[in-house]
Amino acid sequence: MTDRPSTPLLDRIHSPADLKSLSDEQLEQLADELRAETISAVSVTGGHLGAGLGVIELTVALHAIFDAPRDRIVWDVSHQTYPHKILTGRRDRIRTLRQKDGLSGFTKRSESPYDPFGAAHSSTSISAALGFAVARDLGGAGIETPACGIGDCIAVIGDGAMSAGMAYEAMNNAGHLGKRLIVILNDNEMSIAPPVGAMSAYLSRLYAGAPFQELKAAAKGAVSLLPPPFREGAKRAKDILKHLAVGGTLFEELGFSYVGPIDGHDMESLLAVLRTVKARAHGPILIHAITKKGKGFAPAESAADRGHGVGKFDVVTGEQKKAASNAPSYTSVFAKSLIAAAERDPRICAVTAAMPDGTGLNRFMERFASRCFDVGIAEQHAVTFAAGLAAGGMRPFCAIYSTFLQRGYDQVVHDVALQRLPVRFAIDRAGLVGADGATHAGAYDIAYLSNLPGFTVMAAADEAELVRMVATAAAHDDGPIAFRFPRGEGVGVEMPERPEPLEIGRGRVVREGRGVALLSFGTRLKEAVEAAEALEARGLSPTVADARFAKPLDRELILRLAREHEALITLEEGAVGGFGSHVAQLLAEEGVFDTGLKFRSMCLPDIFIDQASPADMYAVAGLNAGDIERKVLEVMGAKVLERRA
Amino acid sequence: MTDRPSTPLLDRIHSPADLKSLSDEQLEQLADELRAETISAVSVTGGHLGAGLGVIELTVALHAIFDAPRDRIVWDVSHQTYPHKILTGRRDRIRTLRQKDGLSGFTKRSESPYDPFGAAHSSTSISAALGFAVARDLGGAGIETPACGIGDCIAVIGDGAMSAGMAYEAMNNAGHLGKRLIVILNDNEMSIAPPVGAMSAYLSRLYAGAPFQELKAAAKGAVSLLPPPFREGAKRAKDILKHLAVGGTLFEELGFSYVGPIDGHDMESLLAVLRTVKARAHGPILIHAITKKGKGFAPAESAADRGHGVGKFDVVTGEQKKAASNAPSYTSVFAKSLIAAAERDPRICAVTAAMPDGTGLNRFMERFASRCFDVGIAEQHAVTFAAGLAAGGMRPFCAIYSTFLQRGYDQVVHDVALQRLPVRFAIDRAGLVGADGATHAGAYDIAYLSNLPGFTVMAAADEAELVRMVATAAAHDDGPIAFRFPRGEGVGVEMPERPEPLEIGRGRVVREGRGVALLSFGTRLKEAVEAAEALEARGLSPTVADARFAKPLDRELILRLAREHEALITLEEGAVGGFGSHVAQLLAEEGVFDTGLKFRSMCLPDIFIDQASPADMYAVAGLNAGDIERKVLEVMGAKVLERRA
Repeated sequence: MTDRPSTPLLDRIHSPADLKSLSDEQLEQLADELRAETISAVSVTGGHLGAGLGVIELTVALHAIFDAPRDRIVWDVSHQTYPHKILTGRRDRIRTLRQKDGLSGFTKRSESPYDPFGAAHSSTSISAALGFAVARDLGGAGIETPACGIGDCIAVIGDGAMSAGMAYEAMNNAGHLGKRLIVILNDNEMSIAPPVGAMSAYLSRLYAGAPFQELKAAAKGAVSLLPPPFREGAKRAKDILKHLAVGGTLFEELGFSYVGPIDGHDMESLLAVLRTVKARAHGPILIHAITKKGKGFAPAESAADRGHGVGKFDVVTGEQKKAASNAPSYTSVFAKSLIAAAERDPRICAVTAAMPDGTGLNRFMERFASRCFDVGIAEQHAVTFAAGLAAGGMRPFCAIYSTFLQRGYDQVVHDVALQRLPVRFAIDRAGLVGADGATHAGAYDIAYLSNLPGFTVMAAADEAELVRMVATAAAHDDGPIAFRFPRGEGVGVEMPERPEPLEIGRGRVVREGRGVALLSFGTRLKEAVEAAEALEARGLSPTVADARFAKPLDRELILRLAREHEALITLEEGAVGGFGSHVAQLLAEEGVFDTGLKFRSMCLPDIFIDQASPADMYAVAGLNAGDIERKVLEVMGAKVLERRA
Repeated sequence: MTDRPSTPLLDRIHSPADLKSLSDEQLEQLADELRAETISAVSVTGGHLGAGLGVIELTVALHAIFDAPRDRIVWDVSHQTYPHKILTGRRDRIRTLRQKDGLSGFTKRSESPYDPFGAAHSSTSISAALGFAVARDLGGAGIETPACGIGDCIAVIGDGAMSAGMAYEAMNNAGHLGKRLIVILNDNEMSIAPPVGAMSAYLSRLYAGAPFQELKAAAKGAVSLLPPPFREGAKRAKDILKHLAVGGTLFEELGFSYVGPIDGHDMESLLAVLRTVKARAHGPILIHAITKKGKGFAPAESAADRGHGVGKFDVVTGEQKKAASNAPSYTSVFAKSLIAAAERDPRICAVTAAMPDGTGLNRFMERFASRCFDVGIAEQHAVTFAAGLAAGGMRPFCAIYSTFLQRGYDQVVHDVALQRLPVRFAIDRAGLVGADGATHAGAYDIAYLSNLPGFTVMAAADEAELVRMVATAAAHDDGPIAFRFPRGEGVGVEMPERPEPLEIGRGRVVREGRGVALLSFGTRLKEAVEAAEALEARGLSPTVADARFAKPLDRELILRLAREHEALITLEEGAVGGFGSHVAQLLAEEGVFDTGLKFRSMCLPDIFIDQASPADMYAVAGLNAGDIERKVLEVMGAKVLERRA
């Protein structure tokens, strides 16, 4: 057990209501205690540390001034809400963060009324908060629904999240509707990676051009928020503010009032601005707060990623306790393979949507700076930009996590698949991902890619297969190709020295058996082999095959397996509609079912699976070796008994 | 045959190269002839008229000044490219526009080298053009690819398209990269519907604040595009321009040079500005051209939608020739039903992404102005905004075409499904859509929605079913629900007077038979019944059932059909991975295949199907009554022969 920090004030806080009786000075002290408690909690759980530390003062100020849950505070991404959770009645469970059966690492409607809208993917908060604001104003018209209880609607969004199109779409709509809506731009010049994009440069200029406004000026600025009858005076005040603060024009052109920049760690400024805004805002307003990711914990402040995501650590030294590993991570295997391919082919380039570290492209960027593009949190643009690169003769690898590629789905269909352009999709974090939970599960990519004409879809069974698939994608000019691989470390297999491209649409048999065939797509292969070996003791010796391709299918292999076995079971780390469904479609068309085949498709079940270790999550999903074994026994049951008898 | 206009100059143009020898005055005359030819062509084909007429002068000027196909002109949406097609060697086929085997109504890479990037969905052009620009600059480094032949990269994008997040994402990235890139903002204050959103208001202010710049001022503005050594002078010139032109600040803050607004129908201005930009641009530049949709054809100019999409028409009167119809359109049935539901439930509201007319919500808006939201071309925001409304106690109907809902897929998963919020998706244009072709096909929604936990997914077999499904959705508070229906008119069935909500997850048998069961999801039901009736003559009497739900499946019905029939064939207007796949998964899990079932799943084939009439497209897809009949005979073949013998 880590020693708990001393938190006399925080110990008295059981809900945000308890903050109302504190003086401004006490709120400052509370912030310090909240910071200590957050560091202490994350030191035992691991998780997103830097983001929460950056909004400690903002969290306290928001809960002191506004009245959650009546006022709806919508946290963008919401990995910065550990302090918010501590203040809203969840302190007793804060050391279960991101653990099985523990608190989610994000906001979650089912977890607390203080989480009015769940998040995890970026840039949704303004849309959601605007939805609440409109519901409030319609509900005010007298509808008997929970909507009646809606007060202020507040989105807290980071500068990185502002690079996403949907944040702009939401501002564009909010500026048009003119409803009272508060957007707090938490500008730490740092999402996960250093910021990119013109918007980010613009925000920096706002800050560089005008150091923090004095409190008086900020308050004066907020005077501009007076309701319509007082607009004349408001306009003058606004002009003064503008003069003082240089900028914010961009937001003003979109219909927002702009207040800032203010020091997001200065409690006095925060409280003054929020009080004024609360008292006087009438339309959409953007408060620009400058914060520091990792604030107040030296090891985070000095880390390159500002303590974005950390393992368990020592609260004094900040040293993280990492489990020793024998195998390289899939991510690093991908990066290394891509660099090797790019050494040989100058047309190869790479695109990431604000995840250079997560995708491993930071290493590619070091080697090929001019051929690597971080486009910001902007998956829609990333995909079509890659399509443009491909149409221009380049061979782009678009590296996006499975769950985030959902953001660019239309672009995959409309700009890549329809035009049969050679864009290569490197899909990391495919399948269940562990502590990030259901919001980050890569469950749908097999289904949503495999039914696109002309697409080639692969899944790596292990890290050696991933190396081969990168080589295959690099060599594949005939249309788009995707390869998926999971989060975490490989299985420790030997790596191919000079990887040859795979033959498109050809799987491989890894274990010859009889009776039942297990056909795996992706990393369940290891579990299938384990299951097969365990089943020897039960008198069964399953054939195990690695499909490698969900599209095009290896028809010959599949039909042979169906012909030569009594049962065929497909395995995949994805939802129904993917690999197993395509196999079923083939078997149906070929009339294989007509005379009987014990066919089963083991895939992710029809539930969202909460965070736990990946192995635990696959246990819930029923996709571990033991589950496969049970499924085989169930399907072959009668026969097993027969042989025993 | 319509009389062809006299076009002496245009008759001499066989490719854009022929424009180089024309004087500026001749280019003006050419524009007039091009306008007449465009009107004449669309009068016999129907199609998108207003958009093309708005860019006649711009099209001529672009091809006169730039060198396509070396210079890449990327047209956003590209329904405005009929004049472009006429000038780029496709005039001889221009009267086959949008017809079977004819020219596409959009740009298409496979159709012409002058179409460097296909489009149809909005707001992709800046991303694609930036891809070309980056490929050009990397190719300039000496890679032996087609990229070597890339000159200027030009995106032509409408003001409506600017409301989409991906356009902003692309500008944000372009401003950051600083590559030479030309964006022409074709501002006609009109996408399909009157414009909405703060950006639109901003653009109007730019124009209102500064009537068209004089040519001299525009040219002076373009001086600001001098390369770095001359920046000092450039900056001064830019300041002058800014003073003259009032605005453009928003674009400048994003790293673009801004030139405008200019009169997009004034050939002299266009040519002068494009010449200067071509000679001197060094970074990203935005040219703001004001145009008029439908320009030069009085009936289009005076129409509410400015001749956005028209049928065949009389070139003199503009009168459109419409086929008489007995049945109401699905769209109008939806609108009427939704209005009826909203009369009873004040929580019901509606969201459209810039398609109030196409979705029928214009009628809802007339009745319930305060409960109807057109958020602009912004599907990502539309979905999450609806989720926010639902979380706030409202009951939003989000009306988005199947193909465009792909734009909001992640939001459907992350904001709606994961939170089990009661958002209702009205999915128009599901299935094959006719003249708009492959880009607009609604092929994937069944697959990408049916594997989301907690979702309810319905398809209407006819317009009476649609009425019931609107009532079902209106009454369904337990999580998200979607109902899909096709483009065009219903089948003329009797409408329910007081529609009762359907029982969730219950299908219906519409024809009791034996031997083979046809289980349809959606409007193929009519074809199934026709096929069944025709098969009577062959000694077969299929059972026909309407599944109504792809999720949850009617397990009881499906298992009974499987048990009581020798063959079961599913039918749907969607790609593999959808309804048939879910049925197959159920049958597999229940062990139905173990002892033999002739199962087939008829769905959209693994190809993109080019434009034609919907019936012709379904013939290509193999989903018409005759195809169903053949499939039944093939599956039941042996038996039929037996009986005959």
